[in-house]
Amino acid sequence: MKFSYVSHLHCPTCSKTYSAREKNQLCVCGSPLLVDYDLDEIKKVLKPSDLLGREASLWRYHELLPVENKENIVSLGEGMTPFIPMPHIGKDMSIRHLFMKDEGVIPTGTFKARGAAVGVSKAKELGIKELAMPTNGNAGAAWSLYAARAGIKTSIVMPLDAPRITRNECAVSGANLYLVNGLISDAGKIVGQAVKDYGLFDASTLKEPYRIEGKKTMGLEIAEQMGWKMPDVILYPTGGGVGIIGIYKALNELIALGWVKGSLPRLVAVQAEGCAPIVKAWKEKKPASEFWPDSSTIAFGINVPKALGDFLVLEAVYKTDGCAVAVDDQSILEEQQKIAALEGAFICPEGAATFVAARRLRENGWIKEEETVVALNTGAGIKYPDTVHVEVPVLQPEDTIQKAMGV
Amino acid sequence: MKFSYVSHLHCPTCSKTYSAREKNQLCVCGSPLLVDYDLDEIKKVLKPSDLLGREASLWRYHELLPVENKENIVSLGEGMTPFIPMPHIGKDMSIRHLFMKDEGVIPTGTFKARGAAVGVSKAKELGIKELAMPTNGNAGAAWSLYAARAGIKTSIVMPLDAPRITRNECAVSGANLYLVNGLISDAGKIVGQAVKDYGLFDASTLKEPYRIEGKKTMGLEIAEQMGWKMPDVILYPTGGGVGIIGIYKALNELIALGWVKGSLPRLVAVQAEGCAPIVKAWKEKKPASEFWPDSSTIAFGINVPKALGDFLVLEAVYKTDGCAVAVDDQSILEEQQKIAALEGAFICPEGAATFVAARRLRENGWIKEEETVVALNTGAGIKYPDTVHVEVPVLQPEDTIQKAMGV
Repeated sequence: MKFSYVSHLHCPTCSKTYSAREKNQLCVCGSPLLVDYDLDEIKKVLKPSDLLGREASLWRYHELLPVENKENIVSLGEGMTPFIPMPHIGKDMSIRHLFMKDEGVIPTGTFKARGAAVGVSKAKELGIKELAMPTNGNAGAAWSLYAARAGIKTSIVMPLDAPRITRNECAVSGANLYLVNGLISDAGKIVGQAVKDYGLFDASTLKEPYRIEGKKTMGLEIAEQMGWKMPDVILYPTGGGVGIIGIYKALNELIALGWVKGSLPRLVAVQAEGCAPIVKAWKEKKPASEFWPDSSTIAFGINVPKALGDFLVLEAVYKTDGCAVAVDDQSILEEQQKIAALEGAFICPEGAATFVAARRLRENGWIKEEETVVALNTGAGIKYPDTVHVEVPVLQPEDTIQKAMGV
Repeated sequence: MKFSYVSHLHCPTCSKTYSAREKNQLCVCGSPLLVDYDLDEIKKVLKPSDLLGREASLWRYHELLPVENKENIVSLGEGMTPFIPMPHIGKDMSIRHLFMKDEGVIPTGTFKARGAAVGVSKAKELGIKELAMPTNGNAGAAWSLYAARAGIKTSIVMPLDAPRITRNECAVSGANLYLVNGLISDAGKIVGQAVKDYGLFDASTLKEPYRIEGKKTMGLEIAEQMGWKMPDVILYPTGGGVGIIGIYKALNELIALGWVKGSLPRLVAVQAEGCAPIVKAWKEKKPASEFWPDSSTIAFGINVPKALGDFLVLEAVYKTDGCAVAVDDQSILEEQQKIAALEGAFICPEGAATFVAARRLRENGWIKEEETVVALNTGAGIKYPDTVHVEVPVLQPEDTIQKAMGV
C-alpha cells in the first residue's frame, strides 16, 4: 500500500498534464492546476472504516493527499475541526438542522492552516527552499509558521489594513514581512515581481497546486463527521475561493470512491456587499468574474476583488445548483454577536457572513426548513479584536457589583 | 452500561463525602471537593480500544466524567488537542524526546475551555441558572461562552490589565462583565460578595468541583496519544493549579484502571519569577503556599498570588518526585519567539514558560537527555498580541521588495 495515491496534475482549462514530482506553478495556458489521484486503486485498498483508528488530523486522509513520503509531513496537528449543531441560531432562522464546521479550532486559528500544512509539506517534498506570497493576513500567517517548521524561508506581503495579529504571526516565525498601502491585488503584484527577480517559489493562491488539497479535507471531514452522508447545502465565505473549490473536489472524489452517494450539496459562495465579484458574475450567469473596484468589507479575508480561480468557484456553484449571495457588514456584525450569545461560539466575520446568507436564503425560500445546512466558519473571532466594541464598568477593589450596577 | 460512572464527591482534607447530584461548592471545612468514580465498574465494561471510534473530543472519556445524562452536554467540540513533536527546540535544549500538548487548538483558544465545558455541562445538569466568577481573562471568556450555549447567565469580574481579547469574548457572549482595578484576588472578593448578595452559584477556581474533571482530560489525552504510555516529565504553567491537579488525578485513575503502568511522570509546576508562591513553598518543603505580594508577570494567566488548591498542587509535585520552577519574563518572551521560528508554533507566554523551565532543568541535569518530556502550552499566542513587537516596512503599490530591502 502506498502512502499517497497522487498520480499527476492536470489543467482544468486546456487539459494539459504535469508531473506531481516536479515543481509546478500555473499551466502554460495561465490556468491553475488540479491534482489527480488513482481513485480506482484507493477504492481497492481503503474503506471508510479503515480511518477509525487514525489520528484526528487531516493526515488521516493521506491516500487522498499529495505527499508521497510520510517523512515530509509538516504538521501542527491541524484538521478534524469541530462539527457542531447550532440548534438555537437554527431555530432563530427556522432551519431545523443547522451545523457549523468550526475552522477556528485549528493551529493559527483559521482554515488557512490546512492549505499551509499540505502546501508546505509538498513544497518540502519538492525541495523548495524559499517561497513568497501575498495575503490578506491569515494565509500569510499560516504559511509563515508552517514554513518555519519546515525550515523554508518565506517572504510575505500583506495590506496595511490586514488584521494586526496576523502581522505578529508572520514576524514571530521569522518571515520577511512587508506591508503594502493597498489591497491584496497590489501585494500580489509586488510578490510577482519578487518571484521573477529572485527566483522564489510563488505560493500565491492557486499559483501552486497543493493548497486546494489541504482545503479539500474540509469536505472530507464534513462527510465523515456526518457518517458519510452529505448535507443539502454548504455555505462558504468566498474570497480567493480555494475552500469552495476544495470542498467541491473532495465531494466528487468521495462519490468516485463510492463513499458517499446521491447528489452533491448545493454550494453557496458567500461574499460581502462591498466586494462581490463572484455574486455579480453568478447573477449575470457568466463563467468568470471581473475585477471589483474600490472593494471594502470588515470581513477582511474575503476582500478579494478578482480571484484567479473564479471560474472554478462558479463551476462548483453552477454544477451543484448552488448560488452566490452578498451580505452587508452591519448584518455580519449583528450575526456574529447573536451566534456568540445563543450558541457560545465567537466566530470571525467571514464565518458570520455565511450565517447571514443562510438566514436570507431561508427567508426567500431557497433553503427549506427541514434541510440539513452546514455553515463554514473559517476562523476564530479572537483574531479580530476590533469587531467587538465593549464598554465595561471599572470597579475599585473595595467596590461591589451592586454598586457598579447602580442598584 | 451507564454514560458516567461518577459515584460521589469527597473532601481531600477532612474526608467528608457529598452527593454528585446536588449543588455543592466547598466542603464545610473550606477545602475544595474532588469527584470519585466507580473505577472497578469502568474496568469491567471499558477498555482503551473501545475509544478508537469515538469522536475526537474530551467527551470520548464520558465514563470518567461527571455528566450523567448525555443530553446535558454543552460542547463546542473541545478536546483531543494536538500532541506534537518538537524536534528542533528539543535539539536546541538537548532533550531528545520533547513534545508539546497544544491547548491553543481548542474553542476559545485556551485550555480553560475544558473546565468550562465540563463545569457548565454539570451546572446545567444540576439546574443552575446563574453563576459568577473572578478570572484572569481566559477562564471567564470560556465560561461566558459555554454558559451562553447552555442558557446560563454569568457575571464575570476580571482585572483591568487582563488580556483585552478576553473582554471581547465575555462581552460578545452577553455576560455581565466588570473590570477591577486590581488583581484576580480582588476580583475574587467582589464575586464572593455578589454570590452572597444574590445567591449565585460560585464558579470560582476549585469552589465548584467539576472544573478539575474537565482539565483532567489533558492527562487522559496525553496517555492515549502516547499509546497508553506515560512520559517521564510533564511541565505545567501553574496559576490556580487546576491543570496540574487534574493531570495528576487523571493519571492516578488510569493506573487504577490498569490502562497505564509504571511510575507517574514527574510533574513540574512552572511559575513566573514575579509570582511564584508554589515555588517558594516547594523550596521550603511546605504543604501550602503563602500570598505573594505585588505579583506581576507578562504571563498573565499564572499571575495568581494565592491559589485555593495550592496544597493539592504541592501534593502532586511531592508525590511524583517533581519540582517547582520560576522563570523570568524576558526568557519567556525569547523562548516564545524561538519556538515560533524553529517549530512554527505561536504559543502563549504561559506555555513558553514551560519550555524555559525544561531548558533550565535540562541544564542543571534534573531532566536527562533521553527522557520523554511533555510541555503544556495552555493557549494560543494570538490571544496575546502585545507579546510580539513588530517593525514592518510599508510599501506603496508601485514599490518592489528590492526597494524596501534597500538593495
